[in-house]
Amino acid sequence: MAEFKLHCFAASGNSYKAALFLALANADWEPVVVDYFGGETRTEGWRDNLNEMGEIPVLEHKGLKISQSGVILDYLAEVTGKFGPRTDEEKRDIWRWILFDNHKFTSYYATLRFMYGLQKTGDTPVTQFLRDRAIGAYRIVDKHLAANKFLVGDRLTIADLSLIGYVYMPEETGIDLAEFPHIEAWKRRISDLPGWRHPHELMPGKKAF
Amino acid sequence: MAEFKLHCFAASGNSYKAALFLALANADWEPVVVDYFGGETRTEGWRDNLNEMGEIPVLEHKGLKISQSGVILDYLAEVTGKFGPRTDEEKRDIWRWILFDNHKFTSYYATLRFMYGLQKTGDTPVTQFLRDRAIGAYRIVDKHLAANKFLVGDRLTIADLSLIGYVYMPEETGIDLAEFPHIEAWKRRISDLPGWRHPHELMPGKKAF
Repeated sequence: MAEFKLHCFAASGNSYKAALFLALANADWEPVVVDYFGGETRTEGWRDNLNEMGEIPVLEHKGLKISQSGVILDYLAEVTGKFGPRTDEEKRDIWRWILFDNHKFTSYYATLRFMYGLQKTGDTPVTQFLRDRAIGAYRIVDKHLAANKFLVGDRLTIADLSLIGYVYMPEETGIDLAEFPHIEAWKRRISDLPGWRHPHELMPGKKAF
Repeated sequence: MAEFKLHCFAASGNSYKAALFLALANADWEPVVVDYFGGETRTEGWRDNLNEMGEIPVLEHKGLKISQSGVILDYLAEVTGKFGPRTDEEKRDIWRWILFDNHKFTSYYATLRFMYGLQKTGDTPVTQFLRDRAIGAYRIVDKHLAANKFLVGDRLTIADLSLIGYVYMPEETGIDLAEFPHIEAWKRRISDLPGWRHPHELMPGKKAF
């Protein structure tokens, strides 16, 4: 049995945050496929057993069941000694970016990609709202990456692994990522790391409805 | 000069999270009013000096400038010894709720309240989308509070102080909060604490456009 079990599926960028950590850290882990599109995370049983918030990923390790990608990343950094903060200032900076990611960067983009790219809603007032907000968040990150190779401390940390969740996903969002050259360069910097793999190669399960 | 300076304004629930911590901890602090509605956080000067993410609150303490309400709450718990986790499990649980708050509970509700309650947009596809998402998040929290007096550890922690940000705000959102009796009871539990004050009493500045 693998040391770490990750409940995840191929189309989930939030799961990819943890899966990519485990891959880059060369950890002993295995994925447990969740049938998200079939409604598995919305069942009472799943919520009672794994995560009352009804979200994936969930990490199992040494009898613990840990949810929220940001908490999983922080936990993995602690137990593996990799990609974590080296100082109190770095710790605050890493959490600052993880919170910004959960509030704005991943949040708006992932919901836009779900509606526009997977549900194929076409453009609606809601997708336009989400796109405007996502672009605002991408501009802030692009500006930061113009002056920094990585988000914190000039090396890969869990802050990068949080924001990286959805940026390799292939679905159309109506956002031209070429407008964010520093984000594009950062994506290449990360995909060049030894052990990097695309979300679809790293996690099993459905890629769409 | 006060020990802590908090850049904030009366209508900001994200600022209230930190302001209420400082009030309940009986800390030596002072507010610095931000003219958010006048666009102050969108200026280059403000972003370069205080927060590149363009958000409030910002806490100043001992030469540090700390942004993101979740990071501020964690920092305040560390330096005051109040309302923080007592174990590693509580630490993960607190961050889990703070992340859920930033992603879903505060996020959708605060944006809905901004559009529907302050900008007076009326009902639009976007406010309906935000309301549905906010109600989903409120249901999860209400269910958790049916079995727990506070979010983590049966006492007030920074997890509660994160989720409490917008729930006392008076603006109309089109959500009937009476549908969430356990959230209502938790609000009363917190407003009964010695030192509690309403956001409008605790922070100066404009309450609306």
